[in-house]
Amino acid sequence: MSIDKGGKTGRRPGRGSTRDSIVLAARAQFAANGFEGATLRAIAADAGVDPALIRHFFGDKEGLFAATLILPTDRVRALIEAFEGGPTGIGERVTRHYLGLWDAEGSRETLTALARTAIGHDKAMDRFRDFLMSTVGREAAALVDQDRPQLRLNLAMAQLLGIALARYVVRTPPIVQASFEEVVAAVAPTVDHYLVGGLGPSRSVS
Amino acid sequence: MSIDKGGKTGRRPGRGSTRDSIVLAARAQFAANGFEGATLRAIAADAGVDPALIRHFFGDKEGLFAATLILPTDRVRALIEAFEGGPTGIGERVTRHYLGLWDAEGSRETLTALARTAIGHDKAMDRFRDFLMSTVGREAAALVDQDRPQLRLNLAMAQLLGIALARYVVRTPPIVQASFEEVVAAVAPTVDHYLVGGLGPSRSVS
Repeated sequence: MSIDKGGKTGRRPGRGSTRDSIVLAARAQFAANGFEGATLRAIAADAGVDPALIRHFFGDKEGLFAATLILPTDRVRALIEAFEGGPTGIGERVTRHYLGLWDAEGSRETLTALARTAIGHDKAMDRFRDFLMSTVGREAAALVDQDRPQLRLNLAMAQLLGIALARYVVRTPPIVQASFEEVVAAVAPTVDHYLVGGLGPSRSVS
Repeated sequence: MSIDKGGKTGRRPGRGSTRDSIVLAARAQFAANGFEGATLRAIAADAGVDPALIRHFFGDKEGLFAATLILPTDRVRALIEAFEGGPTGIGERVTRHYLGLWDAEGSRETLTALARTAIGHDKAMDRFRDFLMSTVGREAAALVDQDRPQLRLNLAMAQLLGIALARYVVRTPPIVQASFEEVVAAVAPTVDHYLVGGLGPSRSVS
């Protein structure tokens, strides 16, 4: 087992190990076939290991899925930093950073896998939500307008997920054919609106 | 094998028939388990028919999926009508109508199935996109600002899909806990922005 590239993803122990090969193969299988369609047998074959080794490391398919959710620390930090710097331009910073993650060849596969798996499978979805809230959720919510900050953050994320799905997963032609800058210019005012704009009245009850 | 032809009443063969029972069972299975997870055997069991009958009617699982895409004509008409009436209030009309469809108990299951299947499976996605464009796509695009109408329509749809996924499929707590009116008030200005607002500069090439 050799260590590959290095560079942007940081140096965590175990990089380039059999365990990592399995996680990489799992991400690719989840991306291509979704949670239901991916099989431990196919993942084992892609990683060049025995399926029993996957069970040894991860227990079951859900355990393996949870392991694919680990994103490099520097990427998570960078996403939080996009929320910093005050309200002016926050929509553009967050939109550009979020879509930039999807646009990067390496992370697109991971994010497609996450989106397909989380949307297709209730238990995977619960883990994904917990993961998001425990990483970016808390810190980012403190950086937006404090009138309903969690609602604001989640409205922005719903918008960004929708546009990422249209551009990178569903591949809706007019959204794919628009340039990256054209999409950022169109979507940034929306993210501004959700994060720091007037949301409209809150409901009177509760 | 006998096939229910609907008798001699002059109605179209198969209405309210075994074929419809299969389509209803298929929608429920696709909603619960996604395209990959749903099996013809489980659908046949739910519909109380032999799996061979499903193959007779629909060929394969993709053929069966295409059959589940048929939405009632009045619903499609109502969605197009939400685009009519000029630019003032178009965002609110479209948002309210679109989320209202998801909010209705009967159609939520169908739409969840569509979203999960289309997002999880490339071929199903292509059929879903063709279906959307051949129904609402053309007419609605004629009713929005004519600077890049297809891009506008698809930006609005990406936003609406994102919020519907967050509220009805992923069930993100802050989006679920917000009232229907609170979500409409927050999202309507975004849909206005995409359909009839300033999108930002178009790209200089092509």
